[in-house]
Amino acid sequence: MSTHRAVTLASRPEGWPEASNFALKQIETLAPADGELLVEIIYLSVDPYMRGRMRDAKSYAAPIELGAVMTGGAVARVVESKSPEYQAGDIVVGDLGWQEKAVVPAKAVRPVDSSIAPISTALSVLGMTGLTAYFGLLDICDPKPSETVVVSGAAGAVGMIVGQIARLKGCRVVGIAGSDEKCDYLVDELGFHAAFNYKTVDHYRKKLAELCPNGIDCYFDNVGGPITDAVFMLLADRARISICGQISQYNNTKVEQGPRQLAQLIVHRAKVEGFLVFDYAERFPEGLNELAAWLRDGKIRYRENVVDGLENAPDAFIGMMQGDNIGKQLVRVKPE
Amino acid sequence: MSTHRAVTLASRPEGWPEASNFALKQIETLAPADGELLVEIIYLSVDPYMRGRMRDAKSYAAPIELGAVMTGGAVARVVESKSPEYQAGDIVVGDLGWQEKAVVPAKAVRPVDSSIAPISTALSVLGMTGLTAYFGLLDICDPKPSETVVVSGAAGAVGMIVGQIARLKGCRVVGIAGSDEKCDYLVDELGFHAAFNYKTVDHYRKKLAELCPNGIDCYFDNVGGPITDAVFMLLADRARISICGQISQYNNTKVEQGPRQLAQLIVHRAKVEGFLVFDYAERFPEGLNELAAWLRDGKIRYRENVVDGLENAPDAFIGMMQGDNIGKQLVRVKPE
Repeated sequence: MSTHRAVTLASRPEGWPEASNFALKQIETLAPADGELLVEIIYLSVDPYMRGRMRDAKSYAAPIELGAVMTGGAVARVVESKSPEYQAGDIVVGDLGWQEKAVVPAKAVRPVDSSIAPISTALSVLGMTGLTAYFGLLDICDPKPSETVVVSGAAGAVGMIVGQIARLKGCRVVGIAGSDEKCDYLVDELGFHAAFNYKTVDHYRKKLAELCPNGIDCYFDNVGGPITDAVFMLLADRARISICGQISQYNNTKVEQGPRQLAQLIVHRAKVEGFLVFDYAERFPEGLNELAAWLRDGKIRYRENVVDGLENAPDAFIGMMQGDNIGKQLVRVKPE
Repeated sequence: MSTHRAVTLASRPEGWPEASNFALKQIETLAPADGELLVEIIYLSVDPYMRGRMRDAKSYAAPIELGAVMTGGAVARVVESKSPEYQAGDIVVGDLGWQEKAVVPAKAVRPVDSSIAPISTALSVLGMTGLTAYFGLLDICDPKPSETVVVSGAAGAVGMIVGQIARLKGCRVVGIAGSDEKCDYLVDELGFHAAFNYKTVDHYRKKLAELCPNGIDCYFDNVGGPITDAVFMLLADRARISICGQISQYNNTKVEQGPRQLAQLIVHRAKVEGFLVFDYAERFPEGLNELAAWLRDGKIRYRENVVDGLENAPDAFIGMMQGDNIGKQLVRVKPE
């Protein structure tokens, strides 16, 4: 019996996830059936949404079962193909899980063109991350030139792309991130107009008012909590808020309380909308084409933080949840 | 010098408004200049938004100055016209204030056609109230046949029209109101599918789940607070929430705390949007035509609660804020 290593969900976290919630196991490598592929995983993505899947609660996707392999997007090389669409050696991307090998239907992956950019970008700027930024900003906020766009979690994988797209659209872009290093990176390297470190600023609202003198037209929210509270108090008329994530809330064991601010939406005739990138699946080619063109023309930049070894995936995930990384957090399961 | 009675803002309320916040005064009746009208007020409208104007805070409209006449919509008869558009005896509606007479630019009022319905309806179903229901529901929620629509403040002037329009659109309509009498009226007289009295139901979420087995597709919110919290936990995918009012919050002296629920918007890809009816001014004729047709055809009904005497306007306003009335609260300043 052929086997490979996989990271499974050992227990459900209470509050912050810990290493003990995961287990590294040797599991059977199945043989691909007709229409399936056997792939070996090269890069694995760790993302905030996975915290939701670890919870035993009804949501837009079913929870991961205890003992099951952690779900997650990955870039992989085809080892054996039982589909006419792929051949051994092809690079693909899909939801392949936290493991060294996977057997998947060919229809569940898409090909990665390594001539456009490094294959890891199929998990970052040219993958779900970039698409999340693209549709969540453009479709929900629809930013106009000279408008002010605020991004929370701005130095994260999604946030840094959001800010750069907003800059390309002619907006004033203000980022909120968790370290001075991140803020410097956003302003100096990515062209954000301003950024501030929420860990050293006491009064978010005052700081935002200073950086957004005309109010906030668009807000792309990755974090929720007190940062979002402050934004709600500074909305411009007809503001649009795109709710991508609420990472500040994901490790709470009970629902946190915060100020009731819906009346602000009346005062400013503002809109708040949540989204899931998967709902835009039919428009992914449009998004990927535009992102690839911007990347090729040097109009947007990206950053990845790569940790080696499947066994380090839990730590990489926990570190990402804590904001240790700048840009996309990846795990290299196997050298390219 | 000719004078008339007016109700002015004597002091700003701390918390709930009280009679002492108002003063009944004799003020000078000005003569109309060119393009202006002198009118005598017949019906005066009292509305929740006025509580906001009594506050000395920045909002979409300037606060009422201390000592100034309370603002408010009114139906009036033209006494003297210095405009070719109107002649003495015409009935008009506009923002004329809490007073017996007013001088206004002819452009600031619109004519009331007394052949369509009683002239008081220019302040209720065929006025701002009906228009608020019409645009806030149809433009923001865009309800589809068989969807579930929940309305809070359902027995209020706006809520009862919202529910009836939703019923006309083929929706399942659930109302939330503050007395058994109101709930019976909504179901027995107005064709709501269900209604419950939030003052006697302990567990809003459980009750709503029972009445909305397929989740809530549309929510028209007049109240905010714990009722709205419960709705947020029962959203259907792609739910649309129209924020018309937050009356439960208007008398708070500090911002109330409530559960953080923005993550629900992601799970259900839901939208929350605030609106002001004045933003739809260009489409008022469309809304009024449709409301008038429904009224004429007996497809919608309305209810008004009329108190006599300008001196009773403060009590009528306070009572309306407390939910004493079913339907539109009006003050008859002068017999028709």
